[in-house]
Amino acid sequence: MQLSIIGLGLIGGSFGLALRSARPTITITGWDRDPAVVASAQDRGAIHHGAATIEEAAANADLVIIGTPVLAVRSVLETIAPHLRENTIVSDLASTKVRVLEWAGALLPPTVFFVGGHPMAGSEQHGIANARADLLRGAVYCLAPLPATPPDTLETIESLVTSIGARPLRIAAADHDAAVAAVSHLPFMLATALVQHTASDEHWPTTRRLAATGYRDMTRLASGDPAMHRDIVATNAAAIAEHLRGFARLLTDLADQLDDPDALLRFFEAAHREREAWLRERDGR
Amino acid sequence: MQLSIIGLGLIGGSFGLALRSARPTITITGWDRDPAVVASAQDRGAIHHGAATIEEAAANADLVIIGTPVLAVRSVLETIAPHLRENTIVSDLASTKVRVLEWAGALLPPTVFFVGGHPMAGSEQHGIANARADLLRGAVYCLAPLPATPPDTLETIESLVTSIGARPLRIAAADHDAAVAAVSHLPFMLATALVQHTASDEHWPTTRRLAATGYRDMTRLASGDPAMHRDIVATNAAAIAEHLRGFARLLTDLADQLDDPDALLRFFEAAHREREAWLRERDGR
Repeated sequence: MQLSIIGLGLIGGSFGLALRSARPTITITGWDRDPAVVASAQDRGAIHHGAATIEEAAANADLVIIGTPVLAVRSVLETIAPHLRENTIVSDLASTKVRVLEWAGALLPPTVFFVGGHPMAGSEQHGIANARADLLRGAVYCLAPLPATPPDTLETIESLVTSIGARPLRIAAADHDAAVAAVSHLPFMLATALVQHTASDEHWPTTRRLAATGYRDMTRLASGDPAMHRDIVATNAAAIAEHLRGFARLLTDLADQLDDPDALLRFFEAAHREREAWLRERDGR
Repeated sequence: MQLSIIGLGLIGGSFGLALRSARPTITITGWDRDPAVVASAQDRGAIHHGAATIEEAAANADLVIIGTPVLAVRSVLETIAPHLRENTIVSDLASTKVRVLEWAGALLPPTVFFVGGHPMAGSEQHGIANARADLLRGAVYCLAPLPATPPDTLETIESLVTSIGARPLRIAAADHDAAVAAVSHLPFMLATALVQHTASDEHWPTTRRLAATGYRDMTRLASGDPAMHRDIVATNAAAIAEHLRGFARLLTDLADQLDDPDALLRFFEAAHREREAWLRERDGR
């Protein structure tokens, strides 16, 4: 099987590293708009070789994985569409799925099959230099096919996903985007806002000296790629705005309750319980 | 030197473990309201031996370290005050300092000396079982003396703090409490609120499956001790409420800006820069 990865960042590169080790018979071609990234991906073993052009990467593949930030997926689909062979499977790794499926439905010829993909893994350390063969291991890997996608295409992708140690989860694109707004995009916005809220204060030169591991972890996501997050917000803005406003109301309500220690304790205990339950389910305990 | 630690939780226990290894000539006595915790602290080597009563722990010490949650510091001070020898130094490890200094000034006899202390380290894994000799290593360790505390008392504490590898920082109690409201208490409230915001949604059974490392880190503090955090909020409520309201306004403003990708990118880039600058300063780069 010939597989092409277009966009060799943290996730595309990690996907290549994992697949190369798990499925040595698959030949992996790579393309990135930055030729230095292609060279680095080849050095690191994430791809067998680089394609000279994006068209070549598309034309020679049985399976194309698009690893670019979400807004770039559209232009990649537009560019590769005329060059794809019949029955090629196309998938992506981007953070939102509704818009991606719309673009794939509109731009790809009916002779190829599309499955939207999103592995729930990442790091604020982006780029091919930080790619790791085990980054996606154990991660839930969302799969959202187009209505026209045949079941055996979905099964082919699920088999690839399983072979690299990730856990495929079939989910409707709208459900996916609603869920990541809550557990991925809102947390990123909070981390970013926390940095700005604290660092814009006149006392920050003193305050920053007292910031420790709690602050470090609560702001980690703010060190992620700003352009990637701008793209994500652009494709999921309504859901994110609703969460920001709902969360702001919750904080204002909490501010009004700070003189009620019993209510606060119940609130903290409930959050403690809910998080422990989530951790237990996640770790399969 | 005879040192007593009253309250053998994560921080008190870690302080004992570190000091025992760094200053083997100091004899460490321990007391906790739970006798099983005293036994565990002795087993783990955080103290040389347990005191039979809190009064005994106070009476035999040159230096008393109070390691209880902040609201309990008051009753400990009240209980030990009549039993302290002349020139005993008393310090604490609690998360806020203004109220602690008020209590110490009002409750301790003028024959003993008080320095408020707060090592900027911790973990959501609380209790003596999670104490570690290196937990405070490298941590900023805030010190806030009473006005009457002689300089050489402060130097004695600073020398102890330095010997366990922490970094003493002299700071006024009010400045300390304002700073931790921003970089410690607000982050805890956000983590707790994020769990409640997400877990109370009707779609949580699906959403929780997509929660990954970002969500895990952004909610870690919510697994901290609920009663300890209730105490912290009770002694710093006004500053925390102000931060919650200011942060809520920031989130609402952000929600209004989501259709402006250039403004968002600038916001994300500024947060990225500020956090990297903080990390560099923190790591001494």
